[in-house]
Amino acid sequence: MLTDFYEITMANGYLECGFQDKEAVFDMFFRKVPDNAGFAIFAGLEQLITFLDNLKFSEDDLEYLRKSKMFSEEFLDYLENFTFDCDVWSVPEGTPVFPNEPVIIVKGPIIQAQFIETMLLTTVNHQSLIATKANRIVRAARGKEVMEFGARRAQGYDAAIYGSRAAYIGGCSSTSCVISANEYDIPVAGTMAHSWIQTFDSEYEAFKCYANIYPDNCIFLVDTYNVLKSGVPNAIRVFDEILKPKGIIPKGIRIDSGDIAYLSKKSRALLDQAGYQDVKIIASNSLDENIIRDLQEQGAAVDIYAVGENLITAKSAPVFGGVYKLCAVEHNGKLQPRIKLSETIEKVNLPHLKKLYRFYSKETGRNVADLVALWDEEINVEHGMTIFDPNASWKKKFLTNIEKKELLQPIFQRGKLVYQMPSLEEIRNYCMEQVELLWDEVKRFEFPHKYYVDLSFKLWDLKNSMLSDLGARGLE
Amino acid sequence: MLTDFYEITMANGYLECGFQDKEAVFDMFFRKVPDNAGFAIFAGLEQLITFLDNLKFSEDDLEYLRKSKMFSEEFLDYLENFTFDCDVWSVPEGTPVFPNEPVIIVKGPIIQAQFIETMLLTTVNHQSLIATKANRIVRAARGKEVMEFGARRAQGYDAAIYGSRAAYIGGCSSTSCVISANEYDIPVAGTMAHSWIQTFDSEYEAFKCYANIYPDNCIFLVDTYNVLKSGVPNAIRVFDEILKPKGIIPKGIRIDSGDIAYLSKKSRALLDQAGYQDVKIIASNSLDENIIRDLQEQGAAVDIYAVGENLITAKSAPVFGGVYKLCAVEHNGKLQPRIKLSETIEKVNLPHLKKLYRFYSKETGRNVADLVALWDEEINVEHGMTIFDPNASWKKKFLTNIEKKELLQPIFQRGKLVYQMPSLEEIRNYCMEQVELLWDEVKRFEFPHKYYVDLSFKLWDLKNSMLSDLGARGLE
Repeated sequence: MLTDFYEITMANGYLECGFQDKEAVFDMFFRKVPDNAGFAIFAGLEQLITFLDNLKFSEDDLEYLRKSKMFSEEFLDYLENFTFDCDVWSVPEGTPVFPNEPVIIVKGPIIQAQFIETMLLTTVNHQSLIATKANRIVRAARGKEVMEFGARRAQGYDAAIYGSRAAYIGGCSSTSCVISANEYDIPVAGTMAHSWIQTFDSEYEAFKCYANIYPDNCIFLVDTYNVLKSGVPNAIRVFDEILKPKGIIPKGIRIDSGDIAYLSKKSRALLDQAGYQDVKIIASNSLDENIIRDLQEQGAAVDIYAVGENLITAKSAPVFGGVYKLCAVEHNGKLQPRIKLSETIEKVNLPHLKKLYRFYSKETGRNVADLVALWDEEINVEHGMTIFDPNASWKKKFLTNIEKKELLQPIFQRGKLVYQMPSLEEIRNYCMEQVELLWDEVKRFEFPHKYYVDLSFKLWDLKNSMLSDLGARGLE
Repeated sequence: MLTDFYEITMANGYLECGFQDKEAVFDMFFRKVPDNAGFAIFAGLEQLITFLDNLKFSEDDLEYLRKSKMFSEEFLDYLENFTFDCDVWSVPEGTPVFPNEPVIIVKGPIIQAQFIETMLLTTVNHQSLIATKANRIVRAARGKEVMEFGARRAQGYDAAIYGSRAAYIGGCSSTSCVISANEYDIPVAGTMAHSWIQTFDSEYEAFKCYANIYPDNCIFLVDTYNVLKSGVPNAIRVFDEILKPKGIIPKGIRIDSGDIAYLSKKSRALLDQAGYQDVKIIASNSLDENIIRDLQEQGAAVDIYAVGENLITAKSAPVFGGVYKLCAVEHNGKLQPRIKLSETIEKVNLPHLKKLYRFYSKETGRNVADLVALWDEEINVEHGMTIFDPNASWKKKFLTNIEKKELLQPIFQRGKLVYQMPSLEEIRNYCMEQVELLWDEVKRFEFPHKYYVDLSFKLWDLKNSMLSDLGARGLE
């Protein structure tokens, strides 16, 4: 029932029109990558699968709908006995994806394929947003660890929980969120807040007490009073007094305010002088990929970046604009392509049931282009392949020495789950590998190169002839 | 267990130190209003109450913590038998609130008062963010209805559900989100997507079929092909053919792309010519307060604004930066004030247990200032009152003819719920009333006047003497 009301009015409407068994095909795709980035990371499939595999309507749901007096008893019966019966294809979680290519396809009775729109979009839009942002931040950190610390600023509980799952897929190394760490087996991180320090009569006593309780997990927050005059000296004193006698190497210090570049370098020097070369410096305080890039460039002595609100809300661009559009519908027993014209050119979609291919260079192993084709086309790359820009079809490119991979995997067949979900660890590793295969130009933070997402000639031709046809009817 | 790991390490630490019964006081406050606005709308209290009233730890939670080998069995026993035992005060939901004033105060055993931090912040930050944004958008619409349509772009399921609750508090008139409408008794809205139109052989047939099923709820989406050449003429034809003979006044049309100002005026003219002066025009497509203000200024003929992603994520400023800081702790049986200095001046908090007063002009009824005072101060406004800017104490103002209201209400006393939650409708009405009482200058969208949040002399003095004291110890 996490759905928009119109999904229900339409579903009831399809039933009333006798369309309930009419087959339809919907694509999920997106038009722009947040932050004007070169690619997005697809995430959220596992939660979508769980939802679709358990889709049913409670007595309370039905009662609510009955009370609105808008729906027939036949429809309420249909919902009561609902079984999901669609085919679903999806790209695997962790895949780098690009604008205007289908990342999920749903084919089945229109009443069902329509109904799942809101839930499908909410799930995939949210996690893809956070995985994409996390991957940017992780790449900015150039090999330094990134911890996800955002729960308190997340847009609600699920945003914290699924957000830290998505952040892990995007490359974060740990989370502060306990429920998420427990549920998804993500490494958990965190030690103390300023309030711990303030509860004691002095910073020194606060550190000492902590070190006695958690000798193996000492990360001291050093900025409650003054990082260089108080925090780091007190940390060193406690390392010396409590941990050194036990032979334990302290874990780290955390700086949460002030100028991180300056303070981290000065703190590093103090720690090194005291013989604590292995103690890590953790930085937090409204970090994002831009500040991290700057800090890295200025040689900040930070080992681990802890990132909160800017990651968990994708603050600089907090919307992943995935849409779900009808692209074919059964007519006289045959699938007929559909296109949406609309008043805004960019909103025109790709008609018909499709496949998505990714071409890799046999030489370098890197991605060279994606191709969207009709579902029943033969795509043969053995003797090379000519691709062209769908918006400027005279711009052609001949690709040789490539191999192709089909990206959309079968997830449900006639409502039966046929996909074996990889573990979160496998998804994260797959994501890291696939991002490695992208050109550096596509990974640039500002004004990245536009990756080629081209159409097969047949699909391009179908789209253009449908548009011409609408034009001829005066509807351009 | 929706909490940051450090809350648990600290809680266990407090127990190990024998601090579990030490009383502490924490404030929730925020430092900046999103969008640099003049005020925020406080929301989320109801969900926070539900959480605190049901706070316990499951076997699975305890098992997870036990596995980490960081926590004592005594602590796990404590969690197993946990009962919430704090005092909580809060401003009521729907209250306009300002930076640096306490909006929630928690007083109780430090182990508990600390532990609830993450959950408290996630809940209140999220809903206050959305209520604040919704209120901006509703004010921009100047009396025109605003529908909340954002579920598919929300940051997860809770963001959709609690987001639409918060949007309703902020002044939206309805939501598209069914689960939220059902749970919170919010009016629900929505009729059809483009896919409905595309399923049929023509737009006319799609409208006609819909009108036959839902004659009382006809809002036609008119931009699938061409608003003025196809959508509106087909809508009028179906109104004429299906609804007019039944004597039903059609509800509206919706425009979801193209230039809303132009298309709405032209559509209005077509509808009026056809005798449909009462048919409403609904506009959607990435609207926010700025676009709505522009549309209103250009005389767009829009009756209802449907707002999605920009509201449900508060896109232009998607973080509400509420924090939760220790301000007093028991020492030898007496509450002792605490302050956090930190490297960043703006991060210094207000020490000690406090009260929050709002002064209203007896003449105009409007808000004139807020005052934060120590909890045991007598604030008497009968003979007027001098207030001063806490950052520029020479700037004084004498207020006369005012009455005071204490804003922080008791919610829990020693863990017992003592607050009677108002209904959502009551909260929304209270919010509208209270926003009415703010000066227009504070409500300006850009560069609003800064509302006075002043400190009592005693509190100001306490803060300054604590800072001087830290300074004298070389910790400034």
